[in-house]
Amino acid sequence: MTTCSDAKHLTRADIEGLEGRYRANLINSLPGFKPAVLIGTASPHGDTNLAIFSSIFHIGANPALLGMIVRPNPPGTERHSLENLLATGVYTMNVVTEAMIEASHHSSARWPRSQSEFDATGLTALWHEGFDAPFVAESPIRIGLSLAEHHPLTINDTHFVIGRVESLDCPEAVVDAEGRIDLSAIGAQVVSGLDGYHSVDAGVRFHYAKPNEAVKRLDTDTQ
Amino acid sequence: MTTCSDAKHLTRADIEGLEGRYRANLINSLPGFKPAVLIGTASPHGDTNLAIFSSIFHIGANPALLGMIVRPNPPGTERHSLENLLATGVYTMNVVTEAMIEASHHSSARWPRSQSEFDATGLTALWHEGFDAPFVAESPIRIGLSLAEHHPLTINDTHFVIGRVESLDCPEAVVDAEGRIDLSAIGAQVVSGLDGYHSVDAGVRFHYAKPNEAVKRLDTDTQ
Repeated sequence: MTTCSDAKHLTRADIEGLEGRYRANLINSLPGFKPAVLIGTASPHGDTNLAIFSSIFHIGANPALLGMIVRPNPPGTERHSLENLLATGVYTMNVVTEAMIEASHHSSARWPRSQSEFDATGLTALWHEGFDAPFVAESPIRIGLSLAEHHPLTINDTHFVIGRVESLDCPEAVVDAEGRIDLSAIGAQVVSGLDGYHSVDAGVRFHYAKPNEAVKRLDTDTQ
Repeated sequence: MTTCSDAKHLTRADIEGLEGRYRANLINSLPGFKPAVLIGTASPHGDTNLAIFSSIFHIGANPALLGMIVRPNPPGTERHSLENLLATGVYTMNVVTEAMIEASHHSSARWPRSQSEFDATGLTALWHEGFDAPFVAESPIRIGLSLAEHHPLTINDTHFVIGRVESLDCPEAVVDAEGRIDLSAIGAQVVSGLDGYHSVDAGVRFHYAKPNEAVKRLDTDTQ
């Protein structure tokens, strides 16, 4: 097998020939850092479930839509989050902050169906009246979603899920006058590969880019 | 209109009632930081195109698949990246590092079709023999993809594109023995909202999580 230690350039055949765990770590490191969120759901009987996801993405702002990829269900295993959201039609996304990373990672263990990950990890379920999925009280950005579309992807048996934003709990004091959330200020985490959790700096912002004009930093307006 | 300055909880109706730019900034800030990559394509005539994307996500490691969302094409505008990759069947993803952020942001301007964003931004096109899309020489993680699936999403006229990894240029010296790429070491950037670029710290890694066992940090093995 040819790894990144042997060659600077891997072909598709090289990647297919990698040992499984090496390939999983390498390909999950692509194409960079990913958002870290906890997905909250409940069964029709009210049993709560919480699981960490990182294949989460913006689809549109109007209507407000977020997408996610749910991994396949190998024989003998269960996908409680997917089963619950398909059954109830609702779920929550809760941004993971630095203080939440150990509990969030622990939610990825194979807990039995009867065990709520809220109880197991010490995170606190928060309910909004009339919405049948639990939010995470410790998260400063809590998003309520209704299931809009569900597409099983035959290419690798994953599931592509589109949710419509039904509610947003705004993080206090970190939304600017133009609607931007200061994600650094709340300590929003990113994930690398399968097991890395990272904090993010305050960063820089740029004006809307125009052809044939140099890119301008937003903060130079006030200097 | 009710904004995050007025209420800690916004309903779907509140979000639909927001001023357009405020809503775009707010919803694009969800659900946290996003990967920053440059998508490289070429027309069937060989004209090159480069554009920054952040709705990019892992779909699977075996086969190695990456997904992306391409925004809709309002009347009178063009989507050069999508047209090119549909025509040639191939495209590249190139991870954006700190040194590349101004050039990468500039790629988002509405350049005319005849203008290569490589020339306009000063980034360098790199070609692999037999692969009809340009890579970005300045990026340490360069991924060659073939178009596997294209799904126009009728819910908001965006496009869901699945690519199969055909090649990977490994970043030298930052892939560990188990296949993890040290994304912090290469300065991989994340995006917040529509205009923020951020660096990421070295972070922490955890062992595979198990029920009823405390989460363990990987680096405590060596302490």
